[in-house]
Amino acid sequence: MRIRKKPWTKQELAENPFVLRNPEQYARKIADYFNNDNPLHLELGCGKGRFISTTANNNPNVNHIAVEREPTVLAVAARLAKQMCQAEQTEQTEQKSAQLIFLELDAAKLCDYFNPQEISRLYINFCDPWPRRKKWAKRRLTHTNFLKIYESLQIPEIFFKTDNRILFEFSINQFSENGWIMRNISLDLHNSNFEDNVKTEYEEKFSKLGPIYRLEAYKF
Amino acid sequence: MRIRKKPWTKQELAENPFVLRNPEQYARKIADYFNNDNPLHLELGCGKGRFISTTANNNPNVNHIAVEREPTVLAVAARLAKQMCQAEQTEQTEQKSAQLIFLELDAAKLCDYFNPQEISRLYINFCDPWPRRKKWAKRRLTHTNFLKIYESLQIPEIFFKTDNRILFEFSINQFSENGWIMRNISLDLHNSNFEDNVKTEYEEKFSKLGPIYRLEAYKF
Repeated sequence: MRIRKKPWTKQELAENPFVLRNPEQYARKIADYFNNDNPLHLELGCGKGRFISTTANNNPNVNHIAVEREPTVLAVAARLAKQMCQAEQTEQTEQKSAQLIFLELDAAKLCDYFNPQEISRLYINFCDPWPRRKKWAKRRLTHTNFLKIYESLQIPEIFFKTDNRILFEFSINQFSENGWIMRNISLDLHNSNFEDNVKTEYEEKFSKLGPIYRLEAYKF
Repeated sequence: MRIRKKPWTKQELAENPFVLRNPEQYARKIADYFNNDNPLHLELGCGKGRFISTTANNNPNVNHIAVEREPTVLAVAARLAKQMCQAEQTEQTEQKSAQLIFLELDAAKLCDYFNPQEISRLYINFCDPWPRRKKWAKRRLTHTNFLKIYESLQIPEIFFKTDNRILFEFSINQFSENGWIMRNISLDLHNSNFEDNVKTEYEEKFSKLGPIYRLEAYKF
């Protein structure tokens, strides 16, 4: 997502305990950071961060990483994670930040950073649909080129949500073409039986304008 | 579909040149009827018949069969095919009926009637979504049990339309689980770029109430 620049971005990124500092230190050895055997779930593009913070809170036995290439977005999302800890008065910021981290990284470079079989679930929520030009379709995070990256990392599950009909049609085609098995398809998530939905800030706002689409794709 | 009984059903089925009489004569040898090398496209459940008659008219080099288990529905659809010929004053009823026939048959018995590789495209338009009971899902023409019938007949393409969201979600899951590759997905067919749509009577009527969903599924 795009967001107005914040004067406090740099300081937040330097001080927030949820931000992974010196990320190059953990390239291809992220297991050293978490230092446990829990599965690793990754959100690609974290927006304002409510989804990943809530999901991490609900699943304490899972390691979570929010990957984001825009520093300002990363700072906003990490700040929310910190605020949620303070609001809960859990005084467990240290413990929580050991289980949820924010990483500045471009999705196209996932393979440089992670090892195959390291990530056991990928969340893609309301990614940019790149609607204007046909040739921009390959920038979509569900384009075959990206699916091949996820495949090379042997990610077995992808949970995908969007409010963009054209992007969802495109994504079903791409998943299908690339041999992913789709399950639990929702063409109107908020009017479906699906119970465990964690809404993103964007979803909260834009679901009034039309249906939210969701699918799960499996491989391996 | 269900339809009020017509007093002229029996006579129509006996006299209409588009109705395949003595169908047992062509069981497992339908090629003898058409007596040409054209591909065979089959509609499963023909409703009032406009779709298959129009599609047959638009594609003179393809053999078409409309399969329907309700005699009254079959009679209504075959009557329309005859009327369309007369309206066009083509005086080619004989020629047209050599290329489009209506066959009384239950979808579950397709394998008894056709040989593998005989059917090169299947149309399923607005089939009964069987919404009331969960256990009725296996009656849906896109349930795995039916997909296995189409697979055993080695039908390489299935073109599917519905206005029922739950049925469409279910169908994507079923096609995906069974290894069919989906293409040209439309979640709102009438507001999409798809140009060759032939509307059924039902579609004309109910598209005002919500979107029409469509997909193409491929195998072999």
